[in-house]
Amino acid sequence: MSLLDIFKRRGSAPVARERLQVLLAYERSNRQRPDLVAVLREEIMAVIAKHVTVDQDDVQITMERGETMSTLEIDININIPNAAAA
Amino acid sequence: MSLLDIFKRRGSAPVARERLQVLLAYERSNRQRPDLVAVLREEIMAVIAKHVTVDQDDVQITMERGETMSTLEIDININIPNAAAA
Repeated sequence: MSLLDIFKRRGSAPVARERLQVLLAYERSNRQRPDLVAVLREEIMAVIAKHVTVDQDDVQITMERGETMSTLEIDININIPNAAAA
Repeated sequence: MSLLDIFKRRGSAPVARERLQVLLAYERSNRQRPDLVAVLREEIMAVIAKHVTVDQDDVQITMERGETMSTLEIDININIPNAAAA
């Protein structure tokens, strides 16, 4: 299964909208280490917001914290104002 | 299959090292739109480098560009100097 399939199988957004998905997984060597995923989350959102206008209702953020593995999933629907009328 | 399984099945780094994986997928509404994945790549690497010391040999970056879907995979092995002797 290639990387493209992982995202395709989640269903594709209608043509006039775009979709950006970010998955982060961090495997710590031990529990005392700071959780990099929580640290990176805000900064990665800030980088994205510099390039696309993001409406809070169109952003879904999911975090999972295991014993030594943390994951973060950011799923953003991007509205393209002009493309819809094209 | 939960998100954690996707990363677990790729094999886990030895205990004294940590691993950070970032997957990005961008579904454009049409080919003329700028490729957000290429734009975000450098800035996300810069955010990561602010928090962990990254050796170029320990970073693997893979980009796939389809008709309207682009994906980016960043796979970083992080060496933990003291943890190895713990």
